[in-house]
Amino acid sequence: MKPRLAITIGDVNGIGPEIIVKAFEDPELLALCRPVIVGSVRALEKYAQYGALSDRIARASEPDLHSLAEDAVGILEPPDLAAPAITLGSISADAGRFAFHCVEVATRLALSGRVDAIVTCPVSKTAVNMAGYRYAGHTEFLAELCGCADYRMMLVAGELRVVHLTTHVSLREALNQVTSPRVADTIRLAHQAVEQLGIKQPKIAVAGLNPHAGEGTLFGTEERDEIAPAIETVRADGIDVTGPVPPDTVFMQMAHGKFDAVVAMYHDQGHIPLKMAAFNRTVNVTLGLPVIRTSVGHGTAFDIAGRGRADPTSLAEAVRLAATMARKRQQVSQ
Amino acid sequence: MKPRLAITIGDVNGIGPEIIVKAFEDPELLALCRPVIVGSVRALEKYAQYGALSDRIARASEPDLHSLAEDAVGILEPPDLAAPAITLGSISADAGRFAFHCVEVATRLALSGRVDAIVTCPVSKTAVNMAGYRYAGHTEFLAELCGCADYRMMLVAGELRVVHLTTHVSLREALNQVTSPRVADTIRLAHQAVEQLGIKQPKIAVAGLNPHAGEGTLFGTEERDEIAPAIETVRADGIDVTGPVPPDTVFMQMAHGKFDAVVAMYHDQGHIPLKMAAFNRTVNVTLGLPVIRTSVGHGTAFDIAGRGRADPTSLAEAVRLAATMARKRQQVSQ
Repeated sequence: MKPRLAITIGDVNGIGPEIIVKAFEDPELLALCRPVIVGSVRALEKYAQYGALSDRIARASEPDLHSLAEDAVGILEPPDLAAPAITLGSISADAGRFAFHCVEVATRLALSGRVDAIVTCPVSKTAVNMAGYRYAGHTEFLAELCGCADYRMMLVAGELRVVHLTTHVSLREALNQVTSPRVADTIRLAHQAVEQLGIKQPKIAVAGLNPHAGEGTLFGTEERDEIAPAIETVRADGIDVTGPVPPDTVFMQMAHGKFDAVVAMYHDQGHIPLKMAAFNRTVNVTLGLPVIRTSVGHGTAFDIAGRGRADPTSLAEAVRLAATMARKRQQVSQ
Repeated sequence: MKPRLAITIGDVNGIGPEIIVKAFEDPELLALCRPVIVGSVRALEKYAQYGALSDRIARASEPDLHSLAEDAVGILEPPDLAAPAITLGSISADAGRFAFHCVEVATRLALSGRVDAIVTCPVSKTAVNMAGYRYAGHTEFLAELCGCADYRMMLVAGELRVVHLTTHVSLREALNQVTSPRVADTIRLAHQAVEQLGIKQPKIAVAGLNPHAGEGTLFGTEERDEIAPAIETVRADGIDVTGPVPPDTVFMQMAHGKFDAVVAMYHDQGHIPLKMAAFNRTVNVTLGLPVIRTSVGHGTAFDIAGRGRADPTSLAEAVRLAATMARKRQQVSQ
């Protein structure tokens, strides 16, 4: 059975609705999954001109998701919050509230097993803030809905995969979080996630924190005191792990096929090389949650909303990854 | 008059001699400059098999550099230290001592105006350490010879240029050095250097320190307290400067032509994207010294020394940049 994916619409005034319509025009994507879009019919209809999709669209409701046809693109409008008026390119509290409400609905579907994974389109942090939500980001909200305090962000772009020790904290705070237990946990999550993506016996590299990975403690001691001991610990568990590797060469080595994933010590250490290498294709995967969740790697792009110029590549990749991970989980649990 | 460049040989057991011979086989490079290699004749002769160069090689000495022919490749052996025995691929104190002694000679030539710029081949930090030199790197040694405590590293790869606020210190110490005066000085040095590379009215971007450039102080306050005030200060001087820009997108924007250079807050913030984009082509330029100095962006590569596989691209680029900067300085002083 193809996995059932909940696709959240994101901010209806951004490019979310457009990339959803464009992505699911591709029959290959529909061959991989049974999507149900959690969002607003009206927002999607704006892009009907792109839509070979219209024949396949079917209204759905939470209780009868199972009755959707195999090749349908389901649309679920949350029954308890009216879809907002659409004012393309502008920031509105209503759109922010609706975007996060759709994430709540999708998370409920995933936690109860009615969908196999969640794929999220971009929200505006300002808009959700105006609606009264106080979160450092989309992921922080989703993690709280799952009752999960400890999770990691993986960025994926083709064969490049980075799992971050920390993300949305100051660099100073990120330094404080470079501890041996946290590094070990992150390596384990990275190993597990890459296996879930279908790579057997993955090779994981761990980036150093300091220039030249500390140059033998000349430029910092975290490599010796925290990172190297964590590597020893997980290696004893049979994980194939290398490091600490100098941060300015480890990503290039991954690009050359030497590693399947890199554990990065902080947000920009991992984000800079992946966005440099493949901005349009990056996908964000949240690890450590009880549900599978992938997300586009870009923002709402209010500046081009409604112009027909939005690129669905990242969403299509996010759907593929979610489908792959969901299938792998189904196989394991069978 | 073509500028006279001193090329230091680096560690004779590494790839320095090979890339020098290969690079100067290209007549275009000789059309840009009059090189004098500061090093060991014996080390270069090992690579004579590559050498259309042999006809042009001429011995030189410090006092009579001016008498070298216009199209000669000069070789200057330091008279006061015997060239070391060559044991390709191995680390030796003798090779380390000789490598740094050649840097001393070249610096003396540059400070006295007998050469217009210095281009350095890679040294082994371990080897120079075994010879009794205690420096965080090549640049730190050169800066001390120049009596200069305050300088910056620029990395260049084609149209990508990054000037680093800090380099060879721990990330924790790098955070402490993000101060408004230091940021302002670095922007000014970046502006001046890019002009010296022939770009008029350059556009400079300043990267933030924290994720999303601090996200309005949610993830750190250095952007508000240190970086933004520095940008205001130098903008008042008429420099075209933008920022603080989120670190994970600013390098991509430069790659798309939006900026001519980026000021990076720490070593890996600048090194990761440039090495990811163009590892073989990166050139290191030291700013703020009384002499022009460029360097290859790679190391000694002991593992491939003597095998004929070394890539001279970075050295050739380093020579081109040094020649460009020296010509520009000649024009300004005329």
